[in-house]
Amino acid sequence: MTILQEEEHPNKVFGWAARDNSGVLSPFKFSRRATGEKDVAFKVLYCGICHSDLNMIKNDWGTSVYPLVPGHEIVGEVTEVGSKVQKFKVGDRVGVGCLVGSCHSCNDCTNNLENYCPKRILTYGAKYHDGTITYGGYSDTMVADEHFIVRIPDNLPLDAAGPLLCAGITVYSPLRYYGLDKPDLHIGVVGLGGLGHMAVKFAKAFGVKVTVISTSSNKKKEALENLGADSFLLSRDQEQLQAAIGTLDGIIDTVSAQHALMPLLGLLKTDGKLVLVGAAEKPLELPIFSLILGRKLVGGSCIGGMKETQEMVDFAAKHNIKPDIEVISMDYVNTAMERLLKADVKYRFVIDVGNTLKATS
Amino acid sequence: MTILQEEEHPNKVFGWAARDNSGVLSPFKFSRRATGEKDVAFKVLYCGICHSDLNMIKNDWGTSVYPLVPGHEIVGEVTEVGSKVQKFKVGDRVGVGCLVGSCHSCNDCTNNLENYCPKRILTYGAKYHDGTITYGGYSDTMVADEHFIVRIPDNLPLDAAGPLLCAGITVYSPLRYYGLDKPDLHIGVVGLGGLGHMAVKFAKAFGVKVTVISTSSNKKKEALENLGADSFLLSRDQEQLQAAIGTLDGIIDTVSAQHALMPLLGLLKTDGKLVLVGAAEKPLELPIFSLILGRKLVGGSCIGGMKETQEMVDFAAKHNIKPDIEVISMDYVNTAMERLLKADVKYRFVIDVGNTLKATS
Repeated sequence: MTILQEEEHPNKVFGWAARDNSGVLSPFKFSRRATGEKDVAFKVLYCGICHSDLNMIKNDWGTSVYPLVPGHEIVGEVTEVGSKVQKFKVGDRVGVGCLVGSCHSCNDCTNNLENYCPKRILTYGAKYHDGTITYGGYSDTMVADEHFIVRIPDNLPLDAAGPLLCAGITVYSPLRYYGLDKPDLHIGVVGLGGLGHMAVKFAKAFGVKVTVISTSSNKKKEALENLGADSFLLSRDQEQLQAAIGTLDGIIDTVSAQHALMPLLGLLKTDGKLVLVGAAEKPLELPIFSLILGRKLVGGSCIGGMKETQEMVDFAAKHNIKPDIEVISMDYVNTAMERLLKADVKYRFVIDVGNTLKATS
Repeated sequence: MTILQEEEHPNKVFGWAARDNSGVLSPFKFSRRATGEKDVAFKVLYCGICHSDLNMIKNDWGTSVYPLVPGHEIVGEVTEVGSKVQKFKVGDRVGVGCLVGSCHSCNDCTNNLENYCPKRILTYGAKYHDGTITYGGYSDTMVADEHFIVRIPDNLPLDAAGPLLCAGITVYSPLRYYGLDKPDLHIGVVGLGGLGHMAVKFAKAFGVKVTVISTSSNKKKEALENLGADSFLLSRDQEQLQAAIGTLDGIIDTVSAQHALMPLLGLLKTDGKLVLVGAAEKPLELPIFSLILGRKLVGGSCIGGMKETQEMVDFAAKHNIKPDIEVISMDYVNTAMERLLKADVKYRFVIDVGNTLKATS
């Protein structure tokens, strides 16, 4: 990057950025475009920390562009709307998730699946329509096309709303799409982190019976007592695994590390669905007999479209579903990243941007 | 096996069996049970040779019991029915596929999915309810519970009907279950053998656009001219692969050898379905990003239930769908197995049991 970020666009912005793959975040001045006729600009109040922020600041996937301002669980209050904006006005509570753009003309976009549009534009570290690089929500202001703005219902606390926009929709969408949202079903949730704990909450709200599946026995109390799961399965325990064979209609697998699919497929009934939402970097081993002999499937899912994201937020508000969060100040972010790397958070860090991000210049 | 097969049951039968994992088949005298009150006995007229017969006679899957009489694409004419048989009478044209028993009480059985019943009993090499080992259709007579008997419509030639009962249902069932049976869809069929050529025929009958995907360019003419596929994709040709990215709604993958799933997943549109019906022995590599970023799935399917098998045979009769077969005499079977191993058959060998199986004693 040779351009002077601060001078690229008219609106000055202050945030925190990673400068290289050390991933260390530090104060950073940059700029955002003037609010276009279809744009909504808002003051950022809170921004969740997604595990992919950690991957991106360290360039784990080889796609990072520096300086990189992370954050795609952004909520705040509208400060300005363009002349053609129809759904939002100044003062509205809004949010932006993982997406800020798409082509609006492909089959995916036509089907409200902007998240699968080949030209989707991610909220940070991606090239926007105007050729400039997008910056995320670890910053004091945000601007986005109203199509990618989500309304946050009044009864949903703003600090808890952020993680819904990525972690929430990432598990809500596959529960819906793969039909794992029916009251008579029994599903498993693998991995009890930012995604997993939301999967338990949404599934319970759908009336689904939930078994949390984890390698760590100290998650049991938490799963049963705090999250309301119906049962707990210690995946290292062969006896427990054996007893649960063929009992699940589906599994939401949130683990992104390498892991064996065979035992999970074994837990499924005929026609059971194993849905992966954790992006393992290397291929996993797929045992074919297990798929064939029970007509099982392994599917993927990636966040959700804008229509469904709004539906999910409204559903969460209606059913009082909130992520469990730890609110932190902006200058704690590097420590938070270290803790996130060790999964030392229940279950999502949320940066109190509004109160703790102070311009230092 | 220490019992004298010939004396186990009252009805003497003559067939051909493999005696060890050399897989060589030779004449074999054995016996079948007396026709029970719910049983249908029939004279075997034709029996198809399935690729799994080849695997079983050689004990490729480690589950074979010798002597082993293969054959689960069995058709013939009813010679005797039990007192409680309701649907069949002497003289009817009938068939038996891969199954001769199940528990009739589990969820799978209740849902007409006997093929996924944990207690399903395979037509040969399995233990029947009475504890004796089942023998397949490379033999002069057959007996089975009427629940597992399929009626062969009058306009379906008997020699061509056999392969429907395994190869046919194996591809028909997933086309239905995974929703790949709609006229506006475009699917790929990988591997043009016994299963693949039937997948092309059924898909075309559903009005689906079909691309045959093969590693061998000499399949092109056959696929387009003889089988009626709409297009052909040479999977070794990167340019052709690249041009077809994101064009398919689904793929029926009939290949049982190790192969890469990544290029196939790339051919799928968003929400595309890759259905495996070839039973690869070793796990295949599953690229997770590809599944997640397009909400794609990899699923399996195994033959079909009895109700659907009858539906498939009736559909085939109505739409004049027949497998392409090479009718052989019983004493050609070992040569046929050698040719099958080299995929040297278009597309299914069918043994003319009625005219060529002669008792030698």
